[in-house]
Amino acid sequence: MEEETLRETAEMGFVIEAEAAAAMMTELGVASAPELLATLVPAAQRLARPTISNFPVGAVGLGTSGRIYIGVNVEFPGLPLHHSIHAEQFLITNAAVHGEAGIRCIAVSSAPCGHCRQFLQELRGAAEIQILVTSDGPGSAFRSLSSFLPRPFGPPDLLHKDHPLLLEPHYNKIALLDGDEEAEAAGGGGGGGGTCNGIGGGVEARLRVEAEGAARAAHAPYSKCPAGFAVADGRGRVYAGSYEESAAYNPSLGPVQAAVVAYMAAGGGGAGKGFEFVAAALVEAEGAVVSHEATARIFLAAVAPRAHLKVYRFRSSADPA
Amino acid sequence: MEEETLRETAEMGFVIEAEAAAAMMTELGVASAPELLATLVPAAQRLARPTISNFPVGAVGLGTSGRIYIGVNVEFPGLPLHHSIHAEQFLITNAAVHGEAGIRCIAVSSAPCGHCRQFLQELRGAAEIQILVTSDGPGSAFRSLSSFLPRPFGPPDLLHKDHPLLLEPHYNKIALLDGDEEAEAAGGGGGGGGTCNGIGGGVEARLRVEAEGAARAAHAPYSKCPAGFAVADGRGRVYAGSYEESAAYNPSLGPVQAAVVAYMAAGGGGAGKGFEFVAAALVEAEGAVVSHEATARIFLAAVAPRAHLKVYRFRSSADPA
Ligand SMILES: [Zn+2]
Ligand SMILES: [Zn+2]
Repeated sequence: MEEETLRETAEMGFVIEAEAAAAMMTELGVASAPELLATLVPAAQRLARPTISNFPVGAVGLGTSGRIYIGVNVEFPGLPLHHSIHAEQFLITNAAVHGEAGIRCIAVSSAPCGHCRQFLQELRGAAEIQILVTSDGPGSAFRSLSSFLPRPFGPPDLLHKDHPLLLEPHYNKIALLDGDEEAEAAGGGGGGGGTCNGIGGGVEARLRVEAEGAARAAHAPYSKCPAGFAVADGRGRVYAGSYEESAAYNPSLGPVQAAVVAYMAAGGGGAGKGFEFVAAALVEAEGAVVSHEATARIFLAAVAPRAHLKVYRFRSSADPA
Repeated sequence: MEEETLRETAEMGFVIEAEAAAAMMTELGVASAPELLATLVPAAQRLARPTISNFPVGAVGLGTSGRIYIGVNVEFPGLPLHHSIHAEQFLITNAAVHGEAGIRCIAVSSAPCGHCRQFLQELRGAAEIQILVTSDGPGSAFRSLSSFLPRPFGPPDLLHKDHPLLLEPHYNKIALLDGDEEAEAAGGGGGGGGTCNGIGGGVEARLRVEAEGAARAAHAPYSKCPAGFAVADGRGRVYAGSYEESAAYNPSLGPVQAAVVAYMAAGGGGAGKGFEFVAAALVEAEGAVVSHEATARIFLAAVAPRAHLKVYRFRSSADPA
């Protein structure tokens, strides 16, 4: 049966539509969607890229839309470990990329680490998210996130209760500076205009638009420094991700990592494949107290050295949320 | 009484010797060392540098030696939030810098975040560390770390039970490459030999020795990439810190942050003061799968732009532990 599951899901992608999930339940003879999540964990693990740890983690979550989202851990040799993406962060970011409104149920291959338990606090109703750890064996059950992280520190300690949380709509005010202002704001780092590295102006324009949209949707209520990142592959396809901030700071997921999730969720960068980025765009505030530019540059130098990065800035307002 | 405590501890440093702690207990009329920890939390908070969040966190821990160690949160404008140091991480690193063998009891001003609960898993007997959150009010009590992070992921999931943990002695094999090999390994990044930036060769030699010693003592059992960092201030004093790795990767504390803790614990970088680093040295393996060089450079560019960094490499062996 597990053998069959693995075969059925050998080509599994990172998002399973509600209808496909229902068909899977019938085919696999599972009675409920949460039970299906646990069944899919081994196939999810096979999508992981633990290139440092060789410890594949798979997480499978059910959205309020009925869609199922997969998350895996992704590691980047040559960089500090804080560049790593954990499976639970991948799952939530994957849901965000696809406009999902909420995640209430997650099955994961091993016990979530404290970093992820903290990251999940950014979701509305975090305490009631149900988590099942499949390595606990056949008798394991879903338990609330509050039982994994009692007495949490989180958004309620810092934000008004009505402030939008992760996976809720954000409309940050982003008005990019024009060329001259931008060149001034970016210093020597932004690179020239026009095309470069063989990337057509059409791709460059789309990178800018996508990164700007991602910055608009970013969750950055603590630093008030929303940011977005977009990457283009060699075929001119563009993938974008929004900065996702944590009340506890360090577990925040950077916009670069969020764009990597968007790229992988669309089928890029699978096992044995590299990250074929040829160009990238970052949108962040000028003089941002939390700036991703330098980190984005060292990330690209390690992961996709031929990718050219262009940085666009906006004048930050007092209230970006 | 609290007023008096604050006055008494206005000049409090980051380490309190066992004898001084005993004198404080008598003077303040507290019955036990754990009770003293809670009493000292407000003074600890005043040593914090939350330059982004304006949310000062103070942590006070009792070492097995009887010494008391202070930890505070430290934030770095212009960098991603994963460069931040949390109070609990500062406390443990401060203890490591001073050769402490263990921490069993911590009072902290607000609930530890998941990132810190995970970082603390690297200590022997983590489950039994006792934590009191002073913001819970007068009736609050010490409770075990296992009650803050039940069903943890940690070292037992990945390491042999006899492997040294954080605060236990490490003797990583570090044999620096000589000048020629080093220049080759470092590429263009290492800078020339001799002196620079007005730093005498004596300081440069001490930076190298201290960073090498810190790499030898680093806790990096997961990546097997030990590293050490040392900084010199304008008066030729040198401060070093060891890389502290977490089983969950992202909560690891980099060697740069560890050196900042050593510098602050010795009285540097206090409120209103900058980080007056004029030179620095990093020791890490050539071709390290976890490399801190690029991150160290962007950290210094943001925090102490006039500091010159020299990178020393060693040939990594299969078993650095
Ligand atoms: Zn995790
Ligand atoms: Zn923390």
